[in-house]
Amino acid sequence: METILPDSLRALRAALEQLPGIGPRSAERLALFLVQSEVEVARGLAEAMVAARERVRFCERCGALAELQTCVFCDDLRRDGALLCVVERAVDVLSVEKSGAFRGRYHVLGGRISPLNGVGPEDLRVEPLERRLVAGGIREVILALGSDVEGDATSHYLAQRLAGRGVRISRLAHGLPAGSGLEYADELTLSQALEGRRELV
Amino acid sequence: METILPDSLRALRAALEQLPGIGPRSAERLALFLVQSEVEVARGLAEAMVAARERVRFCERCGALAELQTCVFCDDLRRDGALLCVVERAVDVLSVEKSGAFRGRYHVLGGRISPLNGVGPEDLRVEPLERRLVAGGIREVILALGSDVEGDATSHYLAQRLAGRGVRISRLAHGLPAGSGLEYADELTLSQALEGRRELV
Repeated sequence: METILPDSLRALRAALEQLPGIGPRSAERLALFLVQSEVEVARGLAEAMVAARERVRFCERCGALAELQTCVFCDDLRRDGALLCVVERAVDVLSVEKSGAFRGRYHVLGGRISPLNGVGPEDLRVEPLERRLVAGGIREVILALGSDVEGDATSHYLAQRLAGRGVRISRLAHGLPAGSGLEYADELTLSQALEGRRELV
Repeated sequence: METILPDSLRALRAALEQLPGIGPRSAERLALFLVQSEVEVARGLAEAMVAARERVRFCERCGALAELQTCVFCDDLRRDGALLCVVERAVDVLSVEKSGAFRGRYHVLGGRISPLNGVGPEDLRVEPLERRLVAGGIREVILALGSDVEGDATSHYLAQRLAGRGVRISRLAHGLPAGSGLEYADELTLSQALEGRRELV
């Protein structure tokens, strides 16, 4: 099979295979589609790719994706600047936005503390977070990190480091995911759901 | 959600969504990956795309994908030029090659006869196929078209049109796909498998 594909097609397939979620078969199908489509399709996609990569950067204030110096979240005056949601990665901001349940501002850490991977607090945007708290006007910091061991450890580290400034520090609830039965929940999820139970009456 | 993504990122997502098999969620994931990857990744993929689209063309003789005037199948002298496999599309050549069961040459029709879509024999590469038969040296034409109604009709049309030249005309067997049980076969497949049964003893 390797020798029967034209060289440039093979190179395109290899490049497509580097993308997340694109396996060898998808890469080949996409490459074949592109070389057989109108030339404007391939060229348009290529240009959109380079333009997006060159224009999209990180907000200087919160670290979210932006095309200007600051992002639409920091610039939106209708948002509640007293609420700060701390996430690991810039894409996590989009997940929180999609929930529609948050109208405050963000702070992107740029990862989580991971001693095994040599990532300490100094590698994350923790100091800029502290500076935002020192600048004042923030009432609550919501830690919206992953619910695995490293995410939990990072949340606890941040809670301790940010404590004592008169700012409330909370983190996302852990429990049953929406629309799921008990039989699908693992033991840790169930024990956390029990521990975090809320009184109804 | 629409207003929170930077413009160029949204444009890239829209372009990616045009690709086959890429839904809205995959397109967004890929776009986010690309804007956060090294700039060489996005640029390299964009260049591979344009290069492949510009360099890959169709073999002047058989219609398969090629970078030169003729393809590797027509140029390979070890292949049996007396066997000609007729397929609908250039990508079908790759499927036949992957089977490893054919070492002859190819002829790409460029589609199938489809009155509903206004595609007649004159819109396909039928005349070039006749010219190849007239030129001589071909012992058998294997029709490897789709096994649906239009593929079948096209096969029968070609069989009639190419008959009477002393060239054997065959088509692929229709029957049970490999590794499948009877319970997964639809009635038409089963009736074709029965009709095409082969004596073992």
